Amino acid sequence: MSRYLDLANTLGSRIERGLYGAGVRLPSVRTLSLEYGVSLTTVQQAYRWLEMAGLVEARPRSGWYVPAARPAPELPKMGKPDLRPTDVSEWGQVQELLDLESESGTIQLGRGMPDVESPTLRPLQAALAREGRRAGIASLHYNDMQGVAALRQQLSRLAVEAGYHVAPDSLIVTTGCQEALSCAVRILCAPGDIVAIASPSYHGMMQILKESGVQVFEIPSDPLQGISLEALELALDRWPVKAIQVTPNASNPLGYTMPEHRRLGLIRLAQRFDVPIIEDDINGDLAYGWPRPHALKALDEDGRVLLCSSFSKTLAPGLRVGWMAPGRYFDKALRMKYTGSGPTAALPQIAVAEFLQKGHYPAHLRRMRRQYQRQRDIMTEWVRRYFPEGTRIGHPQGGFTLWIELPESFDTHALDPMLKENGIAIAHGNIFSATGKYRNCMRLSHASVFTPRTEWAVRRIGEAVGEILHSTC
Amino acid sequence: MSRYLDLANTLGSRIERGLYGAGVRLPSVRTLSLEYGVSLTTVQQAYRWLEMAGLVEARPRSGWYVPAARPAPELPKMGKPDLRPTDVSEWGQVQELLDLESESGTIQLGRGMPDVESPTLRPLQAALAREGRRAGIASLHYNDMQGVAALRQQLSRLAVEAGYHVAPDSLIVTTGCQEALSCAVRILCAPGDIVAIASPSYHGMMQILKESGVQVFEIPSDPLQGISLEALELALDRWPVKAIQVTPNASNPLGYTMPEHRRLGLIRLAQRFDVPIIEDDINGDLAYGWPRPHALKALDEDGRVLLCSSFSKTLAPGLRVGWMAPGRYFDKALRMKYTGSGPTAALPQIAVAEFLQKGHYPAHLRRMRRQYQRQRDIMTEWVRRYFPEGTRIGHPQGGFTLWIELPESFDTHALDPMLKENGIAIAHGNIFSATGKYRNCMRLSHASVFTPRTEWAVRRIGEAVGEILHSTC
Ligand SMILES: Cc1ncc(COP(=O)(O)O)c(C=O)c1O
Ligand SMILES: Cc1ncc(COP(=O)(O)O)c(C=O)c1O
Repeated sequence: MSRYLDLANTLGSRIERGLYGAGVRLPSVRTLSLEYGVSLTTVQQAYRWLEMAGLVEARPRSGWYVPAARPAPELPKMGKPDLRPTDVSEWGQVQELLDLESESGTIQLGRGMPDVESPTLRPLQAALAREGRRAGIASLHYNDMQGVAALRQQLSRLAVEAGYHVAPDSLIVTTGCQEALSCAVRILCAPGDIVAIASPSYHGMMQILKESGVQVFEIPSDPLQGISLEALELALDRWPVKAIQVTPNASNPLGYTMPEHRRLGLIRLAQRFDVPIIEDDINGDLAYGWPRPHALKALDEDGRVLLCSSFSKTLAPGLRVGWMAPGRYFDKALRMKYTGSGPTAALPQIAVAEFLQKGHYPAHLRRMRRQYQRQRDIMTEWVRRYFPEGTRIGHPQGGFTLWIELPESFDTHALDPMLKENGIAIAHGNIFSATGKYRNCMRLSHASVFTPRTEWAVRRIGEAVGEILHSTC
Repeated sequence: MSRYLDLANTLGSRIERGLYGAGVRLPSVRTLSLEYGVSLTTVQQAYRWLEMAGLVEARPRSGWYVPAARPAPELPKMGKPDLRPTDVSEWGQVQELLDLESESGTIQLGRGMPDVESPTLRPLQAALAREGRRAGIASLHYNDMQGVAALRQQLSRLAVEAGYHVAPDSLIVTTGCQEALSCAVRILCAPGDIVAIASPSYHGMMQILKESGVQVFEIPSDPLQGISLEALELALDRWPVKAIQVTPNASNPLGYTMPEHRRLGLIRLAQRFDVPIIEDDINGDLAYGWPRPHALKALDEDGRVLLCSSFSKTLAPGLRVGWMAPGRYFDKALRMKYTGSGPTAALPQIAVAEFLQKGHYPAHLRRMRRQYQRQRDIMTEWVRRYFPEGTRIGHPQGGFTLWIELPESFDTHALDPMLKENGIAIAHGNIFSATGKYRNCMRLSHASVFTPRTEWAVRRIGEAVGEILHSTC
């Protein structure tokens, strides 16, 4: 599977960069087979893959062509700013999302779960087995409250690639990114305080804020550029905001990566109003562009950015290995970590440290980024094909979730009976808001390798949306 | 090593139960060797072990005897009740305790770390290795927020042995007991609320309360019977107490196991004042008596007891596998768990489930209880021998920590330079209090198999105490 994906990727990016104009005939299967030293079948598979993504089209007895230029699908609209902060509403639907996952046989497009079946994860399994076998003092004893030293060393090296410098001693390993985010909120906020957050945003963060009794000021976000600095400034100016929460890289659910000037503007605002920033960088290593975009923390001059991350999207969520670089809040963060859950389980930390140290991470990332990017294209194409006119689609720059916006009157919960009946799970848009916004949106995951059932599921959803829209006209 | 400990244990309990009176000559080495089918050396080792514990004495050319009866050492005194709740003081010293651990070469009598080198843990290592090798979907994916189902099934079975019934679906697996306790406090209390807590108590709990901004009402505890119900009633009567925190079984640091009538009294009080109870049962399976004492939860009639526990003392703390049976607070607890750290790492859960399911746990517990009980005897004997007159010693009924009380004027921090110089770590008494009580106390761990260096360390501490006391007279 790897070779044809490689080739599809090479051709795909050439087409996207405009190296072949619209309507142009592409190199023949035979030519490419010779050029790349791969079988004819491999080339054909690559072309079919690109066809699924709408990047090439077959003309009978003539070969493969670049299709006539089509307008890009419309992007989701940016929301309107709120007038005041609000409490986070109920969590029942989040719980549903978490529950659904266990129903086997379900086509799971709802949860943000990476593909953990990639062969590039095999060295990680080997490391887990090795360390399980040794199960020495290191993995059975209480370990360092900050986390296994060998892992923190590796994290410190990864930080350099993300554009910031942090000594291993200034990092704290956490039980997933969730614990890092939770510590950050509890460090910065007391019940009743206000947090400004890019909207839509990760539902788990919303629930952390709810549990902490914090009020939320949702700041509209542009689907390509991220949090609106204008709306943020207004909020900071009018309200005693205690923290800003953003996900600048390959955000969940929209998938944007904030451009550099916006990041600078954000940092300036935070400095001017003296507000700390909680940065969620969980998808940073999965940004499609290479080298990866910097973390916002790279612009941090005075330790006000608390960076939170984990290997839950890049390696495997079940490991529960996350970390935080809490800047000037280090002491509080360590205490919070200690009281909240004690040290994080040692064995997965040791195995991940080994995986990183032996250099397996870049190859794994390369593969996953490619897979997720290509599948974004394909899923986008499916949505264009099967969803009714007026559907707007995000254009994620990383990660593996696609945000879909339907006409404003539509409520995605109207799909629930159909979804249940067909064993399909999606993430409803409203859980990405503190106040039930985005009821006309949904998030679909494109992580797992697509099968015909995946296309069938997207098609079923799209058709059901059409039927409902039609019947209510 | 196992056989002589077995024999020592059999003989030891006979002597303790008075089967051989004071001054009586014990069976000869040869007789026991024949009777138990073990070597002469094994019997001699067993006798020497009992001698260390002061349970037998050698008479030259005559054999082994039960020593003349000695008065038991005096127990620590019960503190005086406080007049009002207070904030928890600083955590610097707790951090020191956690840090020290990493200095290798230190004789670690400070941390509450079980012996993880017992051969009875080998099946657990095998399970970790097997699961690491498989590292299937189950251990890499997000798993059930409540924890791995197979583990919860086993926990539900263990609950029966602890006298209570809880369905697997009413349990939540947590990242150590620490996370369970932390969730419990955050469910029940807002900043400024008051918690009544048995004193002295586990320093980690103290720090949870501090982090939650909770005020603490320390209730004095009897070294054999636990929390004073009289003082507790007074506190409940006068103050709006939001929760009671107790460790009824093999408490840390005193080691008491509350007698049945006290437990009933405690539950009645909680019902009368309608206050929930946070029960820490982390050492319940390590109570020396068998069958194990019931959890307080066994008396819970209306779901007001939130039981928190883990395998950190019974198996290995590095696994970070804990759980809670939160009674009527289940929904809140699950939400708290979700927002606090997401699900707990799967691989250790799966391995522990396998260890339990295959029936390895009882044999392991048997061995550890025996080791800890015998070493309690030996350490008690050392303290009697090497510490100055007036030293009071706890008489733990389980677990592996010994509480030592020195004359009131003594400050154990005066030992710090000596401890540092000699590479010995102890737990200072004051961290077991919210308000710096117990400065004249220390807690010594007797978990790891004793070596001559252990005796040397206890002796050095005792002598140093004597010197300081002497020089200040
Ligand atoms: C943006 C974002 N942050 C944090 C998390 C939580 O990550 P973890 O599983 O490492 O706790 C998720 C998981 O879905 C996420 O999407
Ligand atoms: C009484 C008590 N409760 C809870 C804990 C925390 O346990 P865990 O390591 O499982 O979080 C400890 C650990 O020292 C303890 O002694």
